[in-house]
Amino acid sequence: MHEGDSCWAFGVSGSIAVVGATGLVGREALSILAERGVPAGCVHAIASERRAGEGVTYGGESLTIESLGEVSFEGVGVAIFCATCEVARAHAPRAIEAGAFVVDNSSAFRLKPGVPLVVPEINADALKARPRLAANPNCSTIILLASLEPLRRCFGIAGIDLATYQAISGAGLAALEELNAQTRSLAAGEPITPAYFGEPCAGNVFSHDSEVEILTGVNGEERKIIEETRKIWCDRSLRISPTCVRVPVERAHTQAITVELGRTAGEAEVRACLARAPGLCVVDDRRGNGFPTPAKATGRDEILVGRIRPDPGTPVDDSGRAKRWCLLVSADQLRKGAALNAIQIAEILMNPARERALCVGEAS
Amino acid sequence: MHEGDSCWAFGVSGSIAVVGATGLVGREALSILAERGVPAGCVHAIASERRAGEGVTYGGESLTIESLGEVSFEGVGVAIFCATCEVARAHAPRAIEAGAFVVDNSSAFRLKPGVPLVVPEINADALKARPRLAANPNCSTIILLASLEPLRRCFGIAGIDLATYQAISGAGLAALEELNAQTRSLAAGEPITPAYFGEPCAGNVFSHDSEVEILTGVNGEERKIIEETRKIWCDRSLRISPTCVRVPVERAHTQAITVELGRTAGEAEVRACLARAPGLCVVDDRRGNGFPTPAKATGRDEILVGRIRPDPGTPVDDSGRAKRWCLLVSADQLRKGAALNAIQIAEILMNPARERALCVGEAS
Repeated sequence: MHEGDSCWAFGVSGSIAVVGATGLVGREALSILAERGVPAGCVHAIASERRAGEGVTYGGESLTIESLGEVSFEGVGVAIFCATCEVARAHAPRAIEAGAFVVDNSSAFRLKPGVPLVVPEINADALKARPRLAANPNCSTIILLASLEPLRRCFGIAGIDLATYQAISGAGLAALEELNAQTRSLAAGEPITPAYFGEPCAGNVFSHDSEVEILTGVNGEERKIIEETRKIWCDRSLRISPTCVRVPVERAHTQAITVELGRTAGEAEVRACLARAPGLCVVDDRRGNGFPTPAKATGRDEILVGRIRPDPGTPVDDSGRAKRWCLLVSADQLRKGAALNAIQIAEILMNPARERALCVGEAS
Repeated sequence: MHEGDSCWAFGVSGSIAVVGATGLVGREALSILAERGVPAGCVHAIASERRAGEGVTYGGESLTIESLGEVSFEGVGVAIFCATCEVARAHAPRAIEAGAFVVDNSSAFRLKPGVPLVVPEINADALKARPRLAANPNCSTIILLASLEPLRRCFGIAGIDLATYQAISGAGLAALEELNAQTRSLAAGEPITPAYFGEPCAGNVFSHDSEVEILTGVNGEERKIIEETRKIWCDRSLRISPTCVRVPVERAHTQAITVELGRTAGEAEVRACLARAPGLCVVDDRRGNGFPTPAKATGRDEILVGRIRPDPGTPVDDSGRAKRWCLLVSADQLRKGAALNAIQIAEILMNPARERALCVGEAS
C-alpha cells in the first residue's frame, strides 16, 4: 500500500480503505472521497473475494477491487467499514492491529461501552482521545439527531415522537433492485411477487422489515433509534416513541417529528436556531406548499428541515411560545445517514486539530 | 324516477341517487350498493352535464348517467353526494326540498352547527332525529376515529399523535392518473414532470397537497382531522397533533398513531378491546412481521389495525399497564374512508329502527 502518502485534503499519512466497496454505502463513500479530492492512488476499494479484480468507479477513474481476506491493512490510515456486522467483527480488529483507525457503519460496536458513537455535529469531542474504533450510528438516528441537535442546544429536549418514511435503498442493493423490478411490474399492470421483503414494496408501505421483539412489539430499527439516541445524547431518561415504516422511494429518508422542548420557545427562535445550524437546510414555503421531500434531498449532503410549526395540540402562550414543535425532515440516508457521516468521523480522527467535521459549503 | 320501489335490503321507499357517479368515490358507492343487492332500477347515477348519457358500471349491469342540472330528485329516498363543496352547496338543498335525505361527502357542511357529522360506529345516535342532511367526515378522520373509538369507550382518550401515509387516489381521478403516468416514467427511467401536484408523486413522498395556513403552518387535511374529531367526539380539549403526508400508493391510507389513554391499560385489554370492535380487523403478527399495509387493506371494508404496543417512551407499571399506546392502521379510504361510511349513514337514515350500521360479515 501507499505508505506515507498525503491522502487527505488536510494532510494525513496513510491510505484510506473502503471495506464493502460494492455495496450502496461503500459506493457512496468512494464517491464522496473522490468529490473531496482524495487521489485514486490513496484509496483501496475492498470487497468479498468473489468481487476481487472487478473495477469500481472512482470519480473519473476506476479502482480495482481487492479481496478482504487477502488485504493486510498495512499502511492504511483509516478503514471505513461499509459492510455487515459479521464482516466488521471479523476484520475490524485486524485493521486496528495493523495500525488503522476504523470507522464502522454496521451496528456491531455501536452500543459497546468505550466505543464512541458519533454524529460530528453533536459529539465530535468523543473523538478527541483518538480511539482506534468509532461507530457510525444508524441512518435514521443520524438524521433525527442531527436535525434536533440545534434545538437541544438552545432549548433542551424532553421527548420525541417520530414516524419515518424510509427509502428502500436503506435495505441495500438487493432491496433496491426488487423495488425497481416491482415498479416495472406495476407500470406494466403485472402482478407483484415479493421476494426480498415479505410485503410488496412498490405501490405499498409497510412496517420496517427489521425483526420485531416478541415481548415489546418494538422493531429493530426503532430499538436502534432509541438506544443510540440515549448513548449519543448521554440521556437515559429521554422519551422517544418511534414508528418505522418503509415507503416506495429509492433513496432519502423522511421523518415526521414532534419534539417536546425543555422549555417554551417562539417560532422565530426555533427557525433561527435551525437556520444557522451546520449541515441543515430549511425548506419551508407555506405559501407554495414547498417542504422537504426525498426527491429534493437525494444526492445532497444537507438535511432538509421544514414544516416548522408549533404542535397544534399543544398550548401556545400569549407571546406565541410553545413547548412542542413539529418538523418534517428529509435527508439522503446513504450520504449524511451513512457514508458522509462516516467520512466526517474519519476526517476528525485523522486530523484531531479540527474542532469539528467540515460542513457543506465550507472550505477545507 | 321509481317512486315507491323497495330499494334497500331492509325495505325503504324511494330510489337512491349517487351524485358524482363518475368520480372515484361515486364509483365506489355504486359498487357497494350493487354488492348489497340494491337493484339497478333503484339507483340513479348522476354527474355533470358533459358526462350525461354515458354508461357507468353497476354490478354486472350498466347505468346511464343523468345530468345533475336536469335531475329533479323527485322520488329519491336518499341522495349520496360524492362531489365537490360547490356541487353540494348548489344542489343538496334542491334534493332536500324534493324530499330526499342527503348524505354529503364534501367538507361543505361538516362543521356547520346542526348538521350531524357521523361515523356510525361512534355517533349513529346523531341520526335518530332523522336529519335531512348528514355529513360524511374526511377520510383520514373516519379511519383514525373508527380505529380509536373502542379504546375511547374502554379507557378514554386524552391525546393523539398521528402521522399519515396517504394514498394518491384520495386526491381524485386526475391525481391517480398522474401517479400511474409517473410510475410508467419511473419504470422506463424517464424524467418525471409534476403537473397535478407540485411535487413528483411516484418515487417520492410529500407533505399533503392541501393549502397550508400561513399563520399556523397547519395544512387543510390536518385542520379537518383536528376540527372534525372535536365535533364527532364532542371534545374541545382533546390534544391532536397530525402530520399528513402523501405516499406513492394508489389506494388505502396508512396511519402511525400514538394515543394517550385516559387511564392505564394492559396489552391484553387493549387487544381484546380492538379485536371485538365492529369494522376493525387486527393484523398483528410480530413473529412474521405481518402488519397492516395498504396492499392488504385495498378493497376491504374493515380497518386493519396492528403493531399494537405500549409506547416504548412511556412508563409501564409493574403489571405491564401503560397510558400511551402505538398502532399502525391501514384502511381503504374510498370505502370506509368515504363511500362505505356514507352508505352506512344512508342505511341508518332510511331505517331508523336499526341501532347501528351493518358491519362487515353481518347479515342484514
